[in-house]
Amino acid sequence: MKENKGTLPYSDEFQEFLAQFLTPERKEVMKTVIEERTRHITIAIEDIYQPHNASAVVRTCDCFGIQDVHIIENRNKYKVNPKVALGSGQWVNIIKHNELEHNSEACMLHLKKKGYKIIATTPHTDDISLYDLSIEEPVALIFGNEKNGITDVVRKHADGFLRIPMYGFTESFNISVSAAICLSVLAEKLRKMDFDWKLKEEEKKLIIHEWTKFRLGSIDKFEHEFKRLQELK
Amino acid sequence: MKENKGTLPYSDEFQEFLAQFLTPERKEVMKTVIEERTRHITIAIEDIYQPHNASAVVRTCDCFGIQDVHIIENRNKYKVNPKVALGSGQWVNIIKHNELEHNSEACMLHLKKKGYKIIATTPHTDDISLYDLSIEEPVALIFGNEKNGITDVVRKHADGFLRIPMYGFTESFNISVSAAICLSVLAEKLRKMDFDWKLKEEEKKLIIHEWTKFRLGSIDKFEHEFKRLQELK
Repeated sequence: MKENKGTLPYSDEFQEFLAQFLTPERKEVMKTVIEERTRHITIAIEDIYQPHNASAVVRTCDCFGIQDVHIIENRNKYKVNPKVALGSGQWVNIIKHNELEHNSEACMLHLKKKGYKIIATTPHTDDISLYDLSIEEPVALIFGNEKNGITDVVRKHADGFLRIPMYGFTESFNISVSAAICLSVLAEKLRKMDFDWKLKEEEKKLIIHEWTKFRLGSIDKFEHEFKRLQELK
Repeated sequence: MKENKGTLPYSDEFQEFLAQFLTPERKEVMKTVIEERTRHITIAIEDIYQPHNASAVVRTCDCFGIQDVHIIENRNKYKVNPKVALGSGQWVNIIKHNELEHNSEACMLHLKKKGYKIIATTPHTDDISLYDLSIEEPVALIFGNEKNGITDVVRKHADGFLRIPMYGFTESFNISVSAAICLSVLAEKLRKMDFDWKLKEEEKKLIIHEWTKFRLGSIDKFEHEFKRLQELK
């Protein structure tokens, strides 16, 4: 599912028309899930080269209610591993940054413009524990690639650095595990905050519409039928 | 590293003799790591069949200071995937339950006898959120295998059931990710408790001795040299 811009390119009537083709159980699940979605926390992954890692991150975002995933493609293109993603790419908005020469820079500026603090997940002399990270302001967590971690561009733009506290001889996790730990903890923290971290009503409607279209498969025939009905009225 | 029984099968002099062959940095790391080790929380994995999953769990235990990992082998034998384990099997005590017909039962009884509450990580009508789990008493988390989850034997012995709160369409993680989320959160919680969750001095000495032997490789030549020196005194 690509980025949606927050305007409704369809009428409420059309959505109502489509919704009748969903099972009541499916509608109920969508209603429950949308209420737990947030854009207060987002995530960007930079040049991940193993499809199972990127797919696992996307799936983790769905699990913890993170609606937007930013994918920076400099050298490596995002490919889905369907066995790992389990279709989760249809439930979150995947925003690709791949059209410029400096996509990391573009993504950082995009996130800052949207009001996010850039938190690079990498050890640093000034890093902060995951458990102490403030989420009063919107936060974008940036994960670097498997081999080299985050790039200098991300480092330059970072407002903070995050580490998962560890105490052993081995002190590293792969990116899918790191992302899961971070998002589980922050999703829990978010639900204890007293500000409104949920989506706006317009955002919810738009996403529910996208989910509905996805569930119904090709909606050409539905559009056709809907228009026919409108004309009869 | 196998289970050690808490008695010292060597003298303090011998350990001092061996320690001189470690670099100061290595000794310092061991000293730091041992102070963060605990047996207040432990983990058991039941019949895991993918070596990379079991190895990842062992590595995660090292990362979060969990000293004992129980491995129940009914149908599947534990095999190490060295690329995933990164040698972590030498830093934690791996206690295998594989000699009886009912190894899950044996492991549960063993853990209960040691004073652990059995917490099965599986959805259940009476489950509790990871974030609400009490760790006032010693806790053993049990993870079932990739396909079937925990067995009925574990279910029967469980004092509680644990779930990681999730809010999306996809609501499952593989065992290595689940274990990492659980242990990260509980390791953090433990460090905020005001009781003594660390190892006893005797336990620390014994483990340091095992780590030292591991670092030095075959210690036959060191034992021989040590005996010679003792005889000269």
